[in-house]
Amino acid sequence: MQDLAQTINRHELFRAEELGSVVKIEAALIEGARQYFKQNNFTEVVVPHITAATGACENVNTLFGVDYFGKRGWLAQTGQLYLESLVPKLDRVFCIGPSFRAEAEADNRHLTEFPLLEMELQCNLDQLIKHIEGVFMSMLTNALKREQALSTLGTDISRLKSIKSPFKRVTYTQAVKDINSHGWDVKWGDDLKAIHEKTLCELYGNKPFFITHYPRAIKFFNMRTNAQDSKIVNSTDFILPYSGEAVGAAEREHEYEILYEKLESSAMLQQLKKLGGSIEDFKWYLDCLRENGSVPHAGCGIGLNRITQFVLGTQDIRGCTGFPLNSATLY
Amino acid sequence: MQDLAQTINRHELFRAEELGSVVKIEAALIEGARQYFKQNNFTEVVVPHITAATGACENVNTLFGVDYFGKRGWLAQTGQLYLESLVPKLDRVFCIGPSFRAEAEADNRHLTEFPLLEMELQCNLDQLIKHIEGVFMSMLTNALKREQALSTLGTDISRLKSIKSPFKRVTYTQAVKDINSHGWDVKWGDDLKAIHEKTLCELYGNKPFFITHYPRAIKFFNMRTNAQDSKIVNSTDFILPYSGEAVGAAEREHEYEILYEKLESSAMLQQLKKLGGSIEDFKWYLDCLRENGSVPHAGCGIGLNRITQFVLGTQDIRGCTGFPLNSATLY
Repeated sequence: MQDLAQTINRHELFRAEELGSVVKIEAALIEGARQYFKQNNFTEVVVPHITAATGACENVNTLFGVDYFGKRGWLAQTGQLYLESLVPKLDRVFCIGPSFRAEAEADNRHLTEFPLLEMELQCNLDQLIKHIEGVFMSMLTNALKREQALSTLGTDISRLKSIKSPFKRVTYTQAVKDINSHGWDVKWGDDLKAIHEKTLCELYGNKPFFITHYPRAIKFFNMRTNAQDSKIVNSTDFILPYSGEAVGAAEREHEYEILYEKLESSAMLQQLKKLGGSIEDFKWYLDCLRENGSVPHAGCGIGLNRITQFVLGTQDIRGCTGFPLNSATLY
Repeated sequence: MQDLAQTINRHELFRAEELGSVVKIEAALIEGARQYFKQNNFTEVVVPHITAATGACENVNTLFGVDYFGKRGWLAQTGQLYLESLVPKLDRVFCIGPSFRAEAEADNRHLTEFPLLEMELQCNLDQLIKHIEGVFMSMLTNALKREQALSTLGTDISRLKSIKSPFKRVTYTQAVKDINSHGWDVKWGDDLKAIHEKTLCELYGNKPFFITHYPRAIKFFNMRTNAQDSKIVNSTDFILPYSGEAVGAAEREHEYEILYEKLESSAMLQQLKKLGGSIEDFKWYLDCLRENGSVPHAGCGIGLNRITQFVLGTQDIRGCTGFPLNSATLY
């Protein structure tokens, strides 16, 4: 059996017991998430994957471009804004589909395409965190039903069975203090790197945990500003052993004037302008909010392969799916 | 309430009861298909959507190209070959995801992106047809649970309740005779157009039906040649009132030498060569078959929006989903 991380001549693995087991675990995780969504009255939404800039995450520089009948289209990184536009009507909505990232690194951490599980609903950050815990535990519980596949992959099942929600929550500010008291020198306002998340994970007992209330400047433009402290947003990242950040989540700004101002002053829009874009690329989304209004809501995106990494206990994301796609590979 | 087919300023519909109902019906149809797959032990597979030519359907001219780190990639039209490569190991597999078509027409029949539900498994054409009937009836049954949404959309529920499988099967050869006896002049070997399917549909009592055993020359290269008549393949299209062809299905060629010859002489490869491609673009797929071998199997692709069209009884595919994407639209 070759290494499951092999991407060149991937077909050599297609008859391997191990690859079949990975596919089964991945399927069980997706199914577990859907079971939670169904039990909690979420409606699935079919969202577009060739999009205007409204399909982009904060890092506009990792968008794949598509010539769309002479217009510039992008391959979607997120369905968030499409889901959000239906929350006033449908409340709890979700989508599961490919997220595309033009990441040039072909290593154990980067894929250019992966399934993102996204939900949006009328709730606040505290309620959202409970839903994230609910989805995660449902995924884990369903994967644990695939004991034979887990055994084939040498997974430590007792480690998985010991995982129980609710999980620890720590603010970004506290997390920075904790990291720095263990030898790092992170400035308040810096984004946390994988190595910092790893340090925190060890510090907090190698269990999943939430970091909340990140600095506004480093997060997606429509995250809702905290009412008490305008430097931070009501956001959270869910951090897992082995994989690091597996979920990004936040309350969303839902008032037109605030949102317009935030978009206009965002780092994302400045990046987009360098690529020839403008605020006009957000026209439908801004029009939708201005004309229809919205309601308080929150949501998140769950990176499937990061969950699989945690379940399998592996440092290499390429071994977590049947057809891992990165810049060195094209099937 | 504006027309649900409106794509310009789509956001004007996002709070409409009707649009919410369409999204709910679409969700119910997908869920119904998944229930069938689960009950029948299919494993879901995550397939890539940026692909080599192995992600293309027979009509290579409707591929969207992507600059993939200096290599040419395409947006997938089908996950068929990826599923097929896992059939020897996993037997029953399926995927549900976006299929991209660079169709320039922005009308009531064309979308540039739509969900395709695909299955592959070890079986023959007769067994496959029974699975298609099973998936279809499960989708329909689940949509019928959304009576309020159907009523909001003015759907004739009694029409849907009268639909029972199994459905009529007619060979392509017989279908051509039947069409021509009603005033058309279709030559054996021509592809059937939407208007021909419509004529047949009326002739056969406005119920779903299967056309089987199409001419080899007009179908995807890896469809299996019929043992008694080498001019036809063991294929079927599933035709629905309102939408026409909703499913394309076939036994797959599984022997390397036969498949290589078929690919080499296919119209698809000639088209691909005009775009600068070559048989090398199928390398992983051919290597996989040559090195691993395969087993007799068959599969299909179900166009979700065509099923929704049938359920809602509408001629306009743009009214069958929340975010209909065509060449005139980009959200």
